[in-house]
Amino acid sequence: MDKQEVIQQAKRMMDEFLIEAKQYIETSFEKELRIETKSNRNDLVTEVDQYIEALFTRYLKQFFPTHKVFGEENAEHKIESLDGAVWIIDPIDGTLNFVEQKRDFAISVALYLDGIGEFGVVYDVAKDDLYRGEKGRGATLNGQPIQKVSQKRGVENSLLIANLSAVKLYPKLKEAIRVSRGLRLYGAASLEFMVVATGRAGAYLAANLAPWDVAASKIIAEELGCIVSRLSGEKIDMLHKGTSIVALPKVYQELRDSYLRK
Amino acid sequence: MDKQEVIQQAKRMMDEFLIEAKQYIETSFEKELRIETKSNRNDLVTEVDQYIEALFTRYLKQFFPTHKVFGEENAEHKIESLDGAVWIIDPIDGTLNFVEQKRDFAISVALYLDGIGEFGVVYDVAKDDLYRGEKGRGATLNGQPIQKVSQKRGVENSLLIANLSAVKLYPKLKEAIRVSRGLRLYGAASLEFMVVATGRAGAYLAANLAPWDVAASKIIAEELGCIVSRLSGEKIDMLHKGTSIVALPKVYQELRDSYLRK
Repeated sequence: MDKQEVIQQAKRMMDEFLIEAKQYIETSFEKELRIETKSNRNDLVTEVDQYIEALFTRYLKQFFPTHKVFGEENAEHKIESLDGAVWIIDPIDGTLNFVEQKRDFAISVALYLDGIGEFGVVYDVAKDDLYRGEKGRGATLNGQPIQKVSQKRGVENSLLIANLSAVKLYPKLKEAIRVSRGLRLYGAASLEFMVVATGRAGAYLAANLAPWDVAASKIIAEELGCIVSRLSGEKIDMLHKGTSIVALPKVYQELRDSYLRK
Repeated sequence: MDKQEVIQQAKRMMDEFLIEAKQYIETSFEKELRIETKSNRNDLVTEVDQYIEALFTRYLKQFFPTHKVFGEENAEHKIESLDGAVWIIDPIDGTLNFVEQKRDFAISVALYLDGIGEFGVVYDVAKDDLYRGEKGRGATLNGQPIQKVSQKRGVENSLLIANLSAVKLYPKLKEAIRVSRGLRLYGAASLEFMVVATGRAGAYLAANLAPWDVAASKIIAEELGCIVSRLSGEKIDMLHKGTSIVALPKVYQELRDSYLRK
């Protein structure tokens, strides 16, 4: 198969997988409806996390038996190499939203071919919103092309999303928040990436994200004209945890020039 | 008309009004689609704010010609008395979300009879979610009764929503956020009230809300078992701006006992 055939096949696999994953999650919510204690709620997310990742692995064996998979649930097998075809999955991104709110969480899946992010999917399960990006071919929301982000909007015309731990690392970000149109916090990295990628906020800054938190979102956001890097400006590799920023180009430049300094 | 007849009539009025308001907003978004500059975007919200409030006033004249109305747009007529039948409206709560995101904003309308909040509606326009509360008769979401909030959940089992200015007023809230399951910020007071009222967060704390920001939400949240007051613990009157907290009962007690102290 050439790359385009792989990606076409990957889309078919993801469509089937996500329908089954959504059904499983909805059934789990119905069963859990009356559970009140924290430990029970945590058991639920562990169970769903593991189930979704195992389900994905079954699909992958069927569609692409030679591909590797790395995810949150088998994080003990750290991603050591991106050689060949590597899938990176976060079965439930936004765990606390999943447990506490039953919304604002996502399934995030990306395909990297020899280290290059070629195909990424972020699926907002509760909203039934499917974001898809393909390197060099743009990004879609529920099949409709998403408009590229503004080149002209800066910090003062934008909402910002920033974890408190990112603000602690770079205290000048407080000033950026003050001059911006305000702070928002949604609690699910991949969906916060999508808020920026669809132009609804100027930037999202986070202190400590795992590769599977950003693998798919980064592909989609870059296709839409966003800049993605570590808070230090370094490139994000998919082998390590670390800080992360996704921003509109002008917002990125302003944050780097004035606020991401110690 | 007795009180029940007034409220039945009020529901009919709101149903008609909200359909027309939603249509107007959707048309405005289509027209605005390509506007990029901040001033143009601000003009849009001013125009829509004024239109929605004028539209409501027209409906009120038709359904309840003797009732008074107070809202954000005629705030120069400060609410001086709650005698008789008084409607309190926020035509667009979450102005910045409206402008920047085209979602997560709400129309908020309440009916107070001789100072008592009898009927409140919060309408999440983008989601088409209609929250309705009636004093002594519970609250509904899209016509379905909403379950009362938990009596047992405390801060450490809850997400918290808190404006940074509330944290500045009561710095010990930082510690509450640390022991909680995390901080969220959505940027529209009435919808943040609804996140707590539907049990998706333990509390929402804000430094400076106007009566029309809370008039309807307070009725709905209290019907679902939440506690609403100023951050100081004082009752909220509908004549003045001020701080505000809405919380699950146990979360409220814990915040008041340990974190809402200077």
